[in-house]
Amino acid sequence: MPRLVMKFGGTSVANLDRIRNAAERVRLEVEKGYDVIVIVSAMSGKTNELVGWVNEISPLYDAREYDAVVSAGENVTAGLMALTLQEMNISARSWQGWQVPVQTTDAYANARIEEIPCKNLKEKFGEGMRVAVVAGFQGVSPQGRVTTLGRGGSDTTAVAFAAAFDAERCDIYTDVDGVYTTDPRISEKARKLDKIAFEEMLELASLGAKVLQTRSVELAMRFNVRVRVLSSFEEPSDEAGTLVCAEEEIMESNVVAGIAYSRDEAKMTLISVADRPGIAAAIFGPLSKAGVNVDMIVQNISEDGRTDMTFSCPTNQVLRAEKAMQDAKENGNINFHKLVADEAVAKVSVVGIGMRSHAGVAAQMFEALHTEGINIKVITTSEIKISVLIERKYMELAVQTLHDAFELNKAV
Amino acid sequence: MPRLVMKFGGTSVANLDRIRNAAERVRLEVEKGYDVIVIVSAMSGKTNELVGWVNEISPLYDAREYDAVVSAGENVTAGLMALTLQEMNISARSWQGWQVPVQTTDAYANARIEEIPCKNLKEKFGEGMRVAVVAGFQGVSPQGRVTTLGRGGSDTTAVAFAAAFDAERCDIYTDVDGVYTTDPRISEKARKLDKIAFEEMLELASLGAKVLQTRSVELAMRFNVRVRVLSSFEEPSDEAGTLVCAEEEIMESNVVAGIAYSRDEAKMTLISVADRPGIAAAIFGPLSKAGVNVDMIVQNISEDGRTDMTFSCPTNQVLRAEKAMQDAKENGNINFHKLVADEAVAKVSVVGIGMRSHAGVAAQMFEALHTEGINIKVITTSEIKISVLIERKYMELAVQTLHDAFELNKAV
Repeated sequence: MPRLVMKFGGTSVANLDRIRNAAERVRLEVEKGYDVIVIVSAMSGKTNELVGWVNEISPLYDAREYDAVVSAGENVTAGLMALTLQEMNISARSWQGWQVPVQTTDAYANARIEEIPCKNLKEKFGEGMRVAVVAGFQGVSPQGRVTTLGRGGSDTTAVAFAAAFDAERCDIYTDVDGVYTTDPRISEKARKLDKIAFEEMLELASLGAKVLQTRSVELAMRFNVRVRVLSSFEEPSDEAGTLVCAEEEIMESNVVAGIAYSRDEAKMTLISVADRPGIAAAIFGPLSKAGVNVDMIVQNISEDGRTDMTFSCPTNQVLRAEKAMQDAKENGNINFHKLVADEAVAKVSVVGIGMRSHAGVAAQMFEALHTEGINIKVITTSEIKISVLIERKYMELAVQTLHDAFELNKAV
Repeated sequence: MPRLVMKFGGTSVANLDRIRNAAERVRLEVEKGYDVIVIVSAMSGKTNELVGWVNEISPLYDAREYDAVVSAGENVTAGLMALTLQEMNISARSWQGWQVPVQTTDAYANARIEEIPCKNLKEKFGEGMRVAVVAGFQGVSPQGRVTTLGRGGSDTTAVAFAAAFDAERCDIYTDVDGVYTTDPRISEKARKLDKIAFEEMLELASLGAKVLQTRSVELAMRFNVRVRVLSSFEEPSDEAGTLVCAEEEIMESNVVAGIAYSRDEAKMTLISVADRPGIAAAIFGPLSKAGVNVDMIVQNISEDGRTDMTFSCPTNQVLRAEKAMQDAKENGNINFHKLVADEAVAKVSVVGIGMRSHAGVAAQMFEALHTEGINIKVITTSEIKISVLIERKYMELAVQTLHDAFELNKAV
C-alpha cells in the first residue's frame, strides 16, 4: 500500500479535542488506502515547561539528562494518538524513538538522525497495522541513551521517515495554512504559495520564516521528499497548504518567490584593521569559538594597508562578539582602531530560483528601496537570494515595498 | 562499596524544591560511603493527569498504550533528579526502565518484574558513578514495549533493585513518617512503630494501610530486603521511620502490632442456596470472572439441603456481583431464594505475629467490641490476623476501642 507521513505540531495536538481532530485527518488518508506514519510533537507548552525546569536546576546542564527529560512530552502524545485512532477502529500503535529505533549521533540536545531501520514498522504494517504513531523530536544514541534533535526537530523526524519509508508525501500540519510570499502580519497583500522549491524554502526557513525546521528542508531536498505544509484547523482538502518540492515540479513561478526578514540583526564594524594575509581567519576564528553566528561579511577596499571589516550577527550576541574582538586585540592577534556596533538594523531578503535566469532583480530591488528613501548598509547575494541590511525602523516599509515591486500578490 | 536504595514518592518530588530536598538526603548517604540507587515516582498529580486523559479517550483502553503514556512522568523526575545531583557535584545519571533493562511480564498496566540485570549499572558504578537514578513504576516487556507495575509500583521497583543489587537497606521516602499502630486520623493514641515484621506489614498493607504497595512487601519478605518507611519532610536521622524486617530482627514486640480497617466493604448474602458438592465453585467462579474481589466468605450450617452463603466485597463491586449471581441463576448453574446486599458495613482487623504464640486474642477482641455494644456480622481469621465485619457507623469506635484494649499506645 502507498505510504504517507503526517506530522502534527504542538498546537495541533494541544488537547484531547485537537488530537481527535488530527486523528480524523489520519482516518481520511487511511480510507483513501494509505498506510500512515504519524509523527507527533508534545502537546503545546509541555516541552517549554520541561526545558524551563532543566534550566532552573542547572543552566549548564548535562545534555544527556536534558534529552531524557524533554523527550517525555512526545511519548505522551504518541500514546494518546494511538488510543484515539484505536477508538475509531483503526489498527494503530505508538512507537518511542528507541523502539523504532531512530538511530542518531550522540550530539545530545542537537542530534542528527543517522538511520531509521524499517524492519519493525514494516513487519507490523505487514500484519495489518494501518497507522504507526511515532514520537517526534527524539532518537537513541549509539550508547543507548535518549537524544533529541533540537527545537522543531519533529519536522526532521517526519521528513526522515518519509525518506526511509519512501512515502508519497510528508504532510506537516501546523497552525499556519501554508508558506506565504511574506509575513502576512507585515504585508496584508501576502499571498499563500501553492508550491515552492526546496532551495527557496531553505532560504526562507533560514531567514526566519519559521514554518519548517531548516534541517528538515535540507533533508527533504537531499532525498526529494515532497513536503506539504498545511493547517490542521482548516477543512481537509487536496489543495490545502503549500507543497515544498523539486524545482522541476513547478511549471511556472514568479522570479521572486518571497520576501523574508530578520529583525534582530546587529551590524559590527572593525575600523582600521591592519590588512594582511590571514586577517579574516584571525577575526572570524575567535568569533566562531565565542559562539557568535556571523551572517553577512563585507570588507572595504584597502587603503594604506588598513581596511574596515563589517559583519552582522544576532543582537543578543553583540556583547560576546565585542569581548572576543577585545581579547584578540589584547593577545596581539589582530589590530584595529575601534569596534562600532549598530544594533538598530534589520535584514530584508528577496528569494527566488527565477533569479538564476533573470538578470536585473538586484537592480530592481535597490531601485525600489531607493524610491522610498531607504538606505542600504550592507549587501550580500547568493544564487537565489539578495539580502540587505537597513535601518530597523524601515523594515516593514521595505518588506511592503519589495512585495509590491515584484508583484508577489499575483500568481503567474 | 555498600549499596543503598532510596525511593522517593510523588509528594517527595512534587516540585524542584522538593527534588532538591530529596537530593540532599541522597548526598548524606553518598557521603557516608554508599553507592546509591534512587528510585523516583512521577511528580505528584502528573500520573493522575495522564491516567485521566487515557480514560477520557477510551474507557476500554489498550493497556500497552496506557503504559506508554502513564510511564512518562517517572522519566521526567529521573532526569531532573540526576541533574540536581550533578549540580551538587555528585556523579549521577538517569535510567529509564528499558535502559536498565527492568524486564517484566507482558501483563501491561499490571506487569510483574521478572529480572533486573545488574551489568549496566554495575559497570557505571565501577567507573565512579555514585548515584543511579531509576524511573520507578516501569519496565519493558519481552516484546520491547513499555510496561507499568500498577499503582504504587515504584515501591516494588525499589525493593526489586534492593534485592538485585544486594542493598543494605531500601529506604522508602513518603509523606508519612512511618507505620503506625493504627490510622492517626482515627485514633490520636496511634503510635509509630520502630520495627514491624514483613508478615504484619503485608496484612496491614493489604488491609488498607496504604503505606507500601502490597506486592513490594511480598517481594521484600521473599528476598529478605530490609525496608525503611520514612518521611522526606522530617530532619534526617538514623532512627527515623519504621523498619520493615524479618521477625528475627525484632527482639520484643506487642502481641498485636496494629489495627487496620477498610471502610468500603459490602456484605452480600445468598439466601437459601441449594447445598450440593461444588456449590462454592459455582458461586465464586462467576464472581471472579466478573472481576469481583471477594474477601471474607462464611457458609451457614446446612438445613434441609439448603444453606445461606455470605461474602464481602468492595462496595463499588456490588452491582457487578449482583449481575453475576442473577446470570448464574438464570443459566441454571445455581439456585437461591434471594440475594441481600448490606452496603453499610466496614472491616476492622487486629494484626500481630504474637498471636501465633498467644491464645486469647480473639476472645479479648470480641469482648472489647461487645462491651461497646458493637455487633459482629462476620468473622474470619488467619494465623496472624482476626477480621470482623461490623456496621460502618461503629468503625471509628471499634478501632479506638481495640487500640485501647490491646494497649497499643505503649511499646513493650
